[in-house]
Amino acid sequence: MVGFEKVANGTKGSLPSAKNTNTTNRSPDSILNLVQGDPTVFEPYWRNQGDKCTLVISGSDFMSYYSDCENICWFLQPQLADAIRNIHRDVGNAVLDDRHIVIGTGSTQLFQAAVYALSSPAGPEPISVVSAAPYYSRYPEEIGFLSSGLYKWGGDANTFDKDGPYIEVVNSPNNPDGTSRDAVVNRSEGRLIHDFAYYWPHYAPIIGAADHNVMLFTLSKCTGHAGSRIGWAIVKDIEVAKKMIKFVEFNSLGVCKESQLRAAKILETISNEYSNLGCTKTENFFEYGQRLMAERWRKLREVIKRSKVFSLPEYPKECCNFSGEFMESHPGNMDAEKLLRSHKMMGKGGKCFGVDSKYARVSVVGREEDFNLLLERISAIKGVETE
Amino acid sequence: MVGFEKVANGTKGSLPSAKNTNTTNRSPDSILNLVQGDPTVFEPYWRNQGDKCTLVISGSDFMSYYSDCENICWFLQPQLADAIRNIHRDVGNAVLDDRHIVIGTGSTQLFQAAVYALSSPAGPEPISVVSAAPYYSRYPEEIGFLSSGLYKWGGDANTFDKDGPYIEVVNSPNNPDGTSRDAVVNRSEGRLIHDFAYYWPHYAPIIGAADHNVMLFTLSKCTGHAGSRIGWAIVKDIEVAKKMIKFVEFNSLGVCKESQLRAAKILETISNEYSNLGCTKTENFFEYGQRLMAERWRKLREVIKRSKVFSLPEYPKECCNFSGEFMESHPGNMDAEKLLRSHKMMGKGGKCFGVDSKYARVSVVGREEDFNLLLERISAIKGVETE
Repeated sequence: MVGFEKVANGTKGSLPSAKNTNTTNRSPDSILNLVQGDPTVFEPYWRNQGDKCTLVISGSDFMSYYSDCENICWFLQPQLADAIRNIHRDVGNAVLDDRHIVIGTGSTQLFQAAVYALSSPAGPEPISVVSAAPYYSRYPEEIGFLSSGLYKWGGDANTFDKDGPYIEVVNSPNNPDGTSRDAVVNRSEGRLIHDFAYYWPHYAPIIGAADHNVMLFTLSKCTGHAGSRIGWAIVKDIEVAKKMIKFVEFNSLGVCKESQLRAAKILETISNEYSNLGCTKTENFFEYGQRLMAERWRKLREVIKRSKVFSLPEYPKECCNFSGEFMESHPGNMDAEKLLRSHKMMGKGGKCFGVDSKYARVSVVGREEDFNLLLERISAIKGVETE
Repeated sequence: MVGFEKVANGTKGSLPSAKNTNTTNRSPDSILNLVQGDPTVFEPYWRNQGDKCTLVISGSDFMSYYSDCENICWFLQPQLADAIRNIHRDVGNAVLDDRHIVIGTGSTQLFQAAVYALSSPAGPEPISVVSAAPYYSRYPEEIGFLSSGLYKWGGDANTFDKDGPYIEVVNSPNNPDGTSRDAVVNRSEGRLIHDFAYYWPHYAPIIGAADHNVMLFTLSKCTGHAGSRIGWAIVKDIEVAKKMIKFVEFNSLGVCKESQLRAAKILETISNEYSNLGCTKTENFFEYGQRLMAERWRKLREVIKRSKVFSLPEYPKECCNFSGEFMESHPGNMDAEKLLRSHKMMGKGGKCFGVDSKYARVSVVGREEDFNLLLERISAIKGVETE
C-alpha cells in the first residue's frame, strides 16, 4: 500500500516494487501503489517510543542454531515465547494454555508449514486446500507453486463439494473484505487453519479468546513490523506442532534470532502499557492504532460516498477498521483494477481473490502522505469516463 | 557439534536438541552431540571485537517489507549487498561482476530456491537432483519433503544414468568429507548448483575466484553466525535470479531485515581488517579461524592415529581444516555411528550421506570444551569391544 512506482515496474502477480517508499515528494503523474499492505502507518508510534524498544545485539550473541532445547520448537527464543503469551493474555484474543507455539519466517512460512502438517503423510491424492471467496490472494500461489503431491489449491470453499479430507483456511477478519468468518464447508474430514493476522484490537473488536486447532498470527499486522518476518502459530495437537517445526527445519533450519528478539521487545512494550494501565499515561498502541484506523476509514467512507464510481462493502458495525478497502465499482461490470489504474492507483483486482473483477482492494495502512493522495485521487474521479 | 543431550532427546533424522549448549559442566555420562555443525567455535573471536560489531536498531526502523526497490531482489538490504561484494573481493573466492545477489533465510532456503528456479516451468516429469556421495545429508530431505512435481531426489551423481535434464549439486569443499569437487555427470542437459558453504580461507585454501551459474554461500559457516539464518546466492542469469526471488517471496515474503543488518555489520568488520592490512594489528578473522581449525585438526589426527577403531580420510594437503571429521571405522564393517554412540558420542552415520555405515561424521566446530571431550572420548576407546 505504501510507495510509488513507475508503471513499468508493476509486474503482474509479483510483489510490485514500491519505488521511493521513503520519498515524501510525489509527482502528480506518479503511480500510487496500493497493492501491498505494507503497514507503515504505525511508524510514528514506534518512533515516539524512543529507546524503550531499541534492540542491541553484540557480535558474539545468538550465534548458535539453537534457541531453547527444552522446547519442541528448538529455534524459538524463550523471550519471544513469553512475549507472545503475554500479549495474547493482555488482548484476550486467543487461548494459549496447554498450546504449543511454533515460530516462522512470517505467517507466510507458517501457513505452508500448517498445510504440510495437515497433509502429511501423503494420501492417495493431494488434499484440497480451500478458502471462501473473496480469499487472501496469496493462498493459491503459496499452495500451488511447488506442485506438491501432498496438497493442492481447491478454490472457493463455498462451492467445494469433493468427498474425503480437505483443509479449509478461515481468515477472520478476512483479507480482503474485512468480514468476520467461520468455516463454511463443515464436514467431518475437514482440517482447519485459522488465519488471525487481523484479529487485533486496532482492526476489529475482540469478541473472545479464539480456540482452534491451528491459529496463525503475524507481527506484520499486529505491530506493523513487516520487515522482521516473524509469525507464530498456536497449535493444540503436539503431533501437528512437531510436523510444522519439521517443515521450518527443512525449509530454513529455524528462524533468525535477531528478529525474534526484536519482536519480543516490541511486544513487551505493548504488554508493559497494559500493565501500567491506571497510571497517568497516553493511549496504548492498540488504542492509538484503533483511533488512527477509524479516522482513515471515516475519511475514506466520506470520499467514497461522494464517488460516482466506487462503493464500499457494508461491514457489520463491529468490524470497521480493516487494513484494506475492498471497493466495488459501480455502475457494475467495470473492471475496478483498471479503473484505479487509469487514475494512477494500483490496486489488486477481484479475480486475485476469487471474485468478480468489478471489485478491487487497495490498502489503507500506508504512510500518511500516500493515504491522503488516495483520498485526493478518488475524489477527483468524476464518473465513468474510463469506460 | 556443540552441546550435550540426554539420549532420549535424540530423534533420528531431526536436528537433535543440544541440551545445555551453554553449560560448561559436563557430567561423565552425558552424551556428546556431534551431529550438527553448530559453528560456536568462533564465539570467542567475536566476543573480543567489543562494540565494533554491535547492532543497534530502534523500534521504528526497517518496518517495511521492502529493502531496495531499485534491485530485482527487493528484500535485500543495500548494506548487506555491499558487504557481500566486499568480502568476496577481499577473499577472492567468487566472481561478482555482473552477477545478481539473491538473499535467503540461510542457504537452506536458497538451495530450494535454486532447485525451484532450475526446474521451472515443470517438465513432463520431475527433474532429478543428484550429488556425488558422500553428499550433504540434508539434500535428499530438503528435495523430497514436499513431494514436488517439479523435482525429486535422484541420489548419487556417480551412478546417475538417466537421460534428459538433471540438476547436479556440487558441494566444494564437500560436506561431509572435505574433498574439493567438480561436477561428475557432465552432460549437456545438466544444470549446476555450486554449494560453497565451506569455500572460505579458514576451511580451505582459496585457489581462485569461482565463477559458476548459481553459487551458494552462508553466514553460518563463513563467520559462525548460524542463528542469523542468512545465506546468499550469486547468480549469472537474471531469469534464474528472478525465479529464486519469486521462491523466497512465495515461501517467506522476504528475509528478515534485522539479521541482514547484523550480517552486514559482521562482514564489514572482516573487510575492515583487510583494509587495515599493513597497520600493526593482530591476526584477522580468517587467520584466526585457520589457526584454530588447524590446531584442532592436528590434535584430532593425533588422537585418531593412536585409535584402534577409527581412521580419517587422507585429504589432499591443500584442504586440511574442514569443519567436520568423516571417520571410517576399522577393522571395516562396523557401524561407525553405533560405535560412537556406545562411547557417548552422537555422530551422523554414513547412510545419511549415501555411503557405507562404516563411516560417520562428527563436527569439530563446536565449543572448546566439547572438542576436548571428543578427543578424550576417542582416546578412551580401547578396541573393538563394542562388536
